[in-house]
Amino acid sequence: MIVKQYLKLDEWSIIEEGFDPHTHEISESVFSIGNGFMGQRANFEEAYSGSSLQGSYMAGVYYPDKTRVGWWKNGYPEYFAKVLNSTNWIGIGIEINGAPLDLAKCTVKNFVRELNMKEGYLSRSFTAVMEDGKELKVEAIRFVSIVRHEIGAIRYAVTPLNFAGELTITPYLDGDVKNKDSNYDEKFWLEVFKEAAQGSASLTVKTKKLDFHVTSVMSYNIVKNGEKLDVQAELIEQEKYAANRASVSVSEGEVITVYKYVANVTSRNHGLGELVNAARAVLEPAVETGFELLLKEQAAAWGDKWKESDIVIEGDVAAQQAIRFNIFQLNQTYSGEDDRLNIGPKGFTGEKYGGSTYWDTEAYCLPFYLSTADASISRNLLIYRYKHLEKAKENARKLGFTKGALYPMVTMNGEECHNEWEITFEEIHRNGAIAYAIYNYVNYTGDFSYLGQYGLEVLVEISRFWEERVNYVPAKDQYMILGVTGPNEYENNVNNNWYTNRIASWTMEYTLDVLEYLKENEDSRYAELTAKLELQEVETDKWQDIISKMYYPEDAELGVFLQQDGFLNKELVPVKELDPVHLPLNQNWSWDRILRSVYIKQADVLQGLFFLGDQFDLATKKRNFDFYEPFTVHESSLSPCVHSILACELGYQEKAYEMYLRTARLDLDNYNNDTEDGCHTTSMAGTWMSVVHGFGGLRVKDGVLHLNPFIPGHWSSFSFKVMFRGSRLKVNVKGSETIIVNETDTPAVLNVNGKEYSISGLGEVKAAR
Amino acid sequence: MIVKQYLKLDEWSIIEEGFDPHTHEISESVFSIGNGFMGQRANFEEAYSGSSLQGSYMAGVYYPDKTRVGWWKNGYPEYFAKVLNSTNWIGIGIEINGAPLDLAKCTVKNFVRELNMKEGYLSRSFTAVMEDGKELKVEAIRFVSIVRHEIGAIRYAVTPLNFAGELTITPYLDGDVKNKDSNYDEKFWLEVFKEAAQGSASLTVKTKKLDFHVTSVMSYNIVKNGEKLDVQAELIEQEKYAANRASVSVSEGEVITVYKYVANVTSRNHGLGELVNAARAVLEPAVETGFELLLKEQAAAWGDKWKESDIVIEGDVAAQQAIRFNIFQLNQTYSGEDDRLNIGPKGFTGEKYGGSTYWDTEAYCLPFYLSTADASISRNLLIYRYKHLEKAKENARKLGFTKGALYPMVTMNGEECHNEWEITFEEIHRNGAIAYAIYNYVNYTGDFSYLGQYGLEVLVEISRFWEERVNYVPAKDQYMILGVTGPNEYENNVNNNWYTNRIASWTMEYTLDVLEYLKENEDSRYAELTAKLELQEVETDKWQDIISKMYYPEDAELGVFLQQDGFLNKELVPVKELDPVHLPLNQNWSWDRILRSVYIKQADVLQGLFFLGDQFDLATKKRNFDFYEPFTVHESSLSPCVHSILACELGYQEKAYEMYLRTARLDLDNYNNDTEDGCHTTSMAGTWMSVVHGFGGLRVKDGVLHLNPFIPGHWSSFSFKVMFRGSRLKVNVKGSETIIVNETDTPAVLNVNGKEYSISGLGEVKAAR
Repeated sequence: MIVKQYLKLDEWSIIEEGFDPHTHEISESVFSIGNGFMGQRANFEEAYSGSSLQGSYMAGVYYPDKTRVGWWKNGYPEYFAKVLNSTNWIGIGIEINGAPLDLAKCTVKNFVRELNMKEGYLSRSFTAVMEDGKELKVEAIRFVSIVRHEIGAIRYAVTPLNFAGELTITPYLDGDVKNKDSNYDEKFWLEVFKEAAQGSASLTVKTKKLDFHVTSVMSYNIVKNGEKLDVQAELIEQEKYAANRASVSVSEGEVITVYKYVANVTSRNHGLGELVNAARAVLEPAVETGFELLLKEQAAAWGDKWKESDIVIEGDVAAQQAIRFNIFQLNQTYSGEDDRLNIGPKGFTGEKYGGSTYWDTEAYCLPFYLSTADASISRNLLIYRYKHLEKAKENARKLGFTKGALYPMVTMNGEECHNEWEITFEEIHRNGAIAYAIYNYVNYTGDFSYLGQYGLEVLVEISRFWEERVNYVPAKDQYMILGVTGPNEYENNVNNNWYTNRIASWTMEYTLDVLEYLKENEDSRYAELTAKLELQEVETDKWQDIISKMYYPEDAELGVFLQQDGFLNKELVPVKELDPVHLPLNQNWSWDRILRSVYIKQADVLQGLFFLGDQFDLATKKRNFDFYEPFTVHESSLSPCVHSILACELGYQEKAYEMYLRTARLDLDNYNNDTEDGCHTTSMAGTWMSVVHGFGGLRVKDGVLHLNPFIPGHWSSFSFKVMFRGSRLKVNVKGSETIIVNETDTPAVLNVNGKEYSISGLGEVKAAR
Repeated sequence: MIVKQYLKLDEWSIIEEGFDPHTHEISESVFSIGNGFMGQRANFEEAYSGSSLQGSYMAGVYYPDKTRVGWWKNGYPEYFAKVLNSTNWIGIGIEINGAPLDLAKCTVKNFVRELNMKEGYLSRSFTAVMEDGKELKVEAIRFVSIVRHEIGAIRYAVTPLNFAGELTITPYLDGDVKNKDSNYDEKFWLEVFKEAAQGSASLTVKTKKLDFHVTSVMSYNIVKNGEKLDVQAELIEQEKYAANRASVSVSEGEVITVYKYVANVTSRNHGLGELVNAARAVLEPAVETGFELLLKEQAAAWGDKWKESDIVIEGDVAAQQAIRFNIFQLNQTYSGEDDRLNIGPKGFTGEKYGGSTYWDTEAYCLPFYLSTADASISRNLLIYRYKHLEKAKENARKLGFTKGALYPMVTMNGEECHNEWEITFEEIHRNGAIAYAIYNYVNYTGDFSYLGQYGLEVLVEISRFWEERVNYVPAKDQYMILGVTGPNEYENNVNNNWYTNRIASWTMEYTLDVLEYLKENEDSRYAELTAKLELQEVETDKWQDIISKMYYPEDAELGVFLQQDGFLNKELVPVKELDPVHLPLNQNWSWDRILRSVYIKQADVLQGLFFLGDQFDLATKKRNFDFYEPFTVHESSLSPCVHSILACELGYQEKAYEMYLRTARLDLDNYNNDTEDGCHTTSMAGTWMSVVHGFGGLRVKDGVLHLNPFIPGHWSSFSFKVMFRGSRLKVNVKGSETIIVNETDTPAVLNVNGKEYSISGLGEVKAAR
């Protein structure tokens, strides 16, 4: 489905004017709302018989769907975890004199849908012309509260424009939903409890496997001309369904407003026997507070979020809208308050890619949360992996390793859960990203306490994995890593992927550093941990040996690292010399042709040069960038940001901006023609990085924040916020200077364009550019 | 399921004594009967509620089952063709006073099952003790006629041993069957027509896709004390089912015999409107001939088959039984009379591996048919591929090649139809085997007419594929082939698999030779073909260039060809140093571990040394054999035969016998614990090769048959038959001499142990050993 850009430009809102069923599923993704604990696609409250991807998601509630494979291979995961579409809690059926309102079956006028990012709500208004000519106006607004995590609220107002009659309103809870991507077309939910009472309904459903329970309790009231009606509703209970059906008579021009409040609670947070009570306990105060005050509370809380994370771009509304959209979606997806949660590739906007956690979290998302939220948030992202350490050890055992931990490529609960062996068995570089995230966190926050508390155990077990996974080649007196897939997934089963070899060796280096640090600084904890880990000197000696004898493929003549052994035997034709009819390759070329081609899906060697930027000089980075970038097709949404950041560093400003543009409006413009499946949530963090690490040039070296900004494209100025070790700095890059305002009273030291500045609490610094 | 050897040793029969439900499915495979046009697993005629794999197969009737994949990759085949389980035509329900006979629900005594290979039938006898103590004896015998290809016949005799009562007999046709390996658990058949009449029934079913029709018409009679009974049967018609239900009263000791005759015809051989009549037309004379004469006819025809293909081993009954079993199954699977048919990996003994044709046919089966049947039979195997040339060109186009033909790895109708990209996209060496088969056929038969008639077109299109598939590397001025899977399927996506590079280059060499031959010997056909093929000089020049600059990985120091680039970087631990708990690897190691290990599933470099044996000296073969054999786990049933043959050539007699033993009784002893899925039919041809090409040392050089025999193991002697250019020779290897008897009146010249002998028609030659 190729779709033109159809959303209106606006600095703070995403706006769709006019209803087009062909773009509806894209809009359902883009206009999604979430609060880190639940999320909801922009499905309609009233019935809709057109194409739609129904989606209500409860964070951490998933289904272990039996793996579907063409040919079973030993070691495959048993299941591919599925983000679960759960109870539809937004539903409000509308009938006019018995005829259901359905935008697929009437004429729709003045349709406007708005995602208000500043205040965190979704609104929609339209006039429907029914088949018999009756016209009614609808104004709906809803949000999921970022203050009260289990609460969603809806205001739904109907006005008959040219008739009087009977309006029937059916607020309901419907648990009879399914996942579009169910492997065997099964439904995943069973009914536990339902009850329809006057003015309310309750529904508890549980998953067929794992016994996750989700309880939804709704309360509603109907207001006419500002007065609450006392309507006697018909109570409806069906399989996995509970509703009230209320009819009111209405005159032309009268406004009937339905307020629907729902509490959605899960067995992740409440005892099985207490679910209904727990839901009522949060629902009641919300209802008492009332919709308008809840909405104010929401706007205020979002205001606080924006204070921490806003980026302002002047001179380019499209860019401004895009970056806010990305920040908004990231904040909707992960709030960092629950260390059992993580960031799914589609957030709460769709089901695709099933499992919740990929290496995206460590490689792409962490920097966003490091800079825009309290350190405790990032820390929780790391603790998530710490808690999965035992599972990662089990995973390594399953694959035949006698020690160490291999973190899964895709997971919900620490277990590997993907369908493809190339990903699960071979893409072991993710283990390095998890180690790297520890380094990144400590380097950014200065929170060295993390190492002794959690970090070391993870690092040691990952190093042990690498120790056993490398392959000593006596003839060469070198260590190699055979049979991997690197970050570039357009290669499979290669030998000596430079990135993997480097990140493996780096992990062992860093682990040894951390051991040294703890020995010197936390000797009793050091003793405790080495005992707990049963760490042997023969192991650390071995790591040292591997570090010193790791084989890195490179070409001396070109002065580049080789993505893997034999890379230069490929046909070296740059992307720009390809007839564009071949692009994107993944839609036009057979898999074997992609595999043997030179074309790179996403940064691979360059990912290593980005992560370990301190270890390589500019000339090396330049040679590798100049060599690899022309072969890169960026068919992963995670690719352009790394290229953009490196291009900034190399002074390739146009290339940097070109790369930035490839992801900035990825979903708003449906660039990859797949936004109907959900938004590319994790890549949004990459876009944020392009601005802050790329255009802003942010790095942390020796505990000091470094900036090296430039203004890209036709922007007149831009500004971003970063939190750094207790201070929050607003960095405004404009004209000939960079103005840094300290919004906190914690003083800070920073380096701008190579020059060091001290900035007092609430102070300001101007740095020449 | 690990099962002890439970079959009785016998030179001419496979015999099972005593009934064990745990081995029943294995026996269902082993005792299968077939005639090249249909096949039937050894399911019971009467009801059986225990574990069973029901299987009736009609050659060439298949189902294009939608491919099931974990993650769709561009270029995947749309379907995985399935050998179709079709109408159960053997069924005869038996009830005693209303209680059904079911061996899972009664006590079974004196059970004997026999596959009589000499005469081509399956028999079974037993005494059943019913729950109420009634005992009855059953003697059943059935066969599918190799004389009348559409006819199956059953004699089923029941004798009450300790009671008198009512015996109800229900001969039926049941089309409501399913394939165990259906990708989405669907049934594949629809009913077209059914009719139950007195003494007969007809059923026509068709496949849900492709519209294959299969009609079965049965006729039966019931005989008591030698007299045909005139029983009025109840006529039963149900969905896809037609039957007669006949009750007869029977006294203790009386024998009731049911004769059931069935004609199974398909729309492959008859018009849609004529199926029922066609079936009746073949059924009627069969019924008139009667069971006993049909059985005699069968025995005589099998006698003729054995005259052409028997191998006699003296001093080793187990080996004798095994080799006859293999020859028997091969002859049951493919008769060579229909050039649209081929040889499925499981023959007619199971569903596994779906599609009918793999490279097994060309690489392993062709030599058997070359030596044991008229040249026209092998020629038909080749023409099968010729007829698929257009599909093979389409297949290459689908994968992005602008010219040439890529034959499928798995096929029913010429289209690729497998579930796995590693197999379909990468295992391109099969294209070489198809070219090699042409060489092999012409070399063996001397039928040079095949080249102009069919061979050249196939060779040119395959050479064109290789031309486009190779990769020129300017820096090295060499051609490479990247991203393949060689014969060793325990590697994926390797670069420069030596075997693939060599067979590709060899194909081009041979194509140029054949072009030269035709230019010299069939100039007008040459002109016609080069015009039809639009063959350009620039193409043949390019082939010449590729031949001269093909890159072959090798290690000069070791003096071995390298299986692929980087092979020596693996951990080079021989299989014998592995703890046996790891074996078989495919049941104990995860797929990634297998892939990066040194272990070889089946002959790879050695396959090339076997195929192109003339091009390498003994020392080269020895170095490579000595290097690769210790790393080979032989987890493909196609592996040991190649090793056995090479070992013979190298004088490694013990190793040769050890390898022979690994496949000789593969199914009889359920060596791989998977015989319940069906027999390893194509590997049986490999076992035959081990004896004739290995122990017999058979080769054809410059049109002369060469033998170089030795007696393996503890055999006292062995003899085999080979047909060669009009003569049929019986080669008897014993004691100090090899005796060759010419069983035809066509004189022959042959070379034994390096010495040439002429042998007159019906003459005999003794060669010292």
